[in-house]
Amino acid sequence: MMELYHCVSARSFRPLWTLAELGKVHGRDYQLTVMPFPPRVHQRDFLQCNPLGTVPAFRDGGVWMTESAAITQYLVSREPESALALTPADADYGAWLNALHYGEATLTFPQTLVLRYGRFESPERLQPQVVEDYQRWFLARLKVLEPQLQQRDWLCAQRFTAADISVGYALMLADGLGLLPMAGPATQAYWQRLQSRAGFQQALQVQAEAARAQGVPEAAAFKA
Amino acid sequence: MMELYHCVSARSFRPLWTLAELGKVHGRDYQLTVMPFPPRVHQRDFLQCNPLGTVPAFRDGGVWMTESAAITQYLVSREPESALALTPADADYGAWLNALHYGEATLTFPQTLVLRYGRFESPERLQPQVVEDYQRWFLARLKVLEPQLQQRDWLCAQRFTAADISVGYALMLADGLGLLPMAGPATQAYWQRLQSRAGFQQALQVQAEAARAQGVPEAAAFKA
Repeated sequence: MMELYHCVSARSFRPLWTLAELGKVHGRDYQLTVMPFPPRVHQRDFLQCNPLGTVPAFRDGGVWMTESAAITQYLVSREPESALALTPADADYGAWLNALHYGEATLTFPQTLVLRYGRFESPERLQPQVVEDYQRWFLARLKVLEPQLQQRDWLCAQRFTAADISVGYALMLADGLGLLPMAGPATQAYWQRLQSRAGFQQALQVQAEAARAQGVPEAAAFKA
Repeated sequence: MMELYHCVSARSFRPLWTLAELGKVHGRDYQLTVMPFPPRVHQRDFLQCNPLGTVPAFRDGGVWMTESAAITQYLVSREPESALALTPADADYGAWLNALHYGEATLTFPQTLVLRYGRFESPERLQPQVVEDYQRWFLARLKVLEPQLQQRDWLCAQRFTAADISVGYALMLADGLGLLPMAGPATQAYWQRLQSRAGFQQALQVQAEAARAQGVPEAAAFKA
């Protein structure tokens, strides 16, 4: 059985959402462990499982992974019948790989700075300048999505794919941070479309049930 | 002909190195444009080419990409005969995807903060606390490489692959920032091994020749 280590609404939501979109069932196909955020502080024994102390951590037999967008690509590419994956033969393959990386490296990391220096650090270590710099940085990088989403519903190959999960999580975080009203209308409509998917809703439900069963607060980690 | 937009020793070195490892020849298989760093300041017309204003920017026919590790994966996966790519059928496929993302999202982004708030910002906007925070962050995330590299020469599949290019560029940046002496001995030896590759040396040479021919300083962007 696959194993996924997760904090509520953290990056590890990407593989959780992917598992739901692939029709995988919690408790049958994978085991979800939900931890308080950040686990390297509140659940020290997790460091024995993942020395990085970060989520996600993911195991599939002998495969061990820690990068959320990579796990998403791994899961969908191992099921060639899944419409979530593209292959090198597809015209949109390059755009698909690009969006998988863009969602994390370009759209998510800057938001973690907004979170860290705006909310998580002790009062004397908060950095309003960094929060402002990386809020602007994020919105500038997000802007390239708007003309694309004015023309189509999904990022690649005219269908929902893993690329939308990678970018979609960045929008979920932006929503939690209150940044989404500054995005363009097509980007906001895209985020509505993503949330209305059965797979997204199912991932939210699995997350809430597992958090409850494991005695972890259900509020998003970024609202801690 | 493929086109790659680049700044000396910036992230766009990943696709440049990948092209060299694949035996692609500058001027025959691809056109390299070298720009002063940051191009959105020093080469404003680049914004018409790439609205993000970032490097790399890459074109292959109708394919347009801006994420360095994604371009690397794209290039090697389009040449299945290349030993640089792994496929979903390989046992190390998950580890390979993970390293492709880890090299950029986990190892490179924190270093850009060290660079920005330690060197590039105007004196009154420098942030020693952020530099220290993300230097520590980078070194903590880098540490997981050391036990792996004590046991093998390359990250995946017992051969040099695109995963080594993604992580290798993060080490190139760390070397430029003076962070590498704080890495473990196996990680430092790995960086020596990477630099001694013919493909790495050839990429350095193409970069220097193109910079000279195009009137751009040859010094690394991060030493600006």
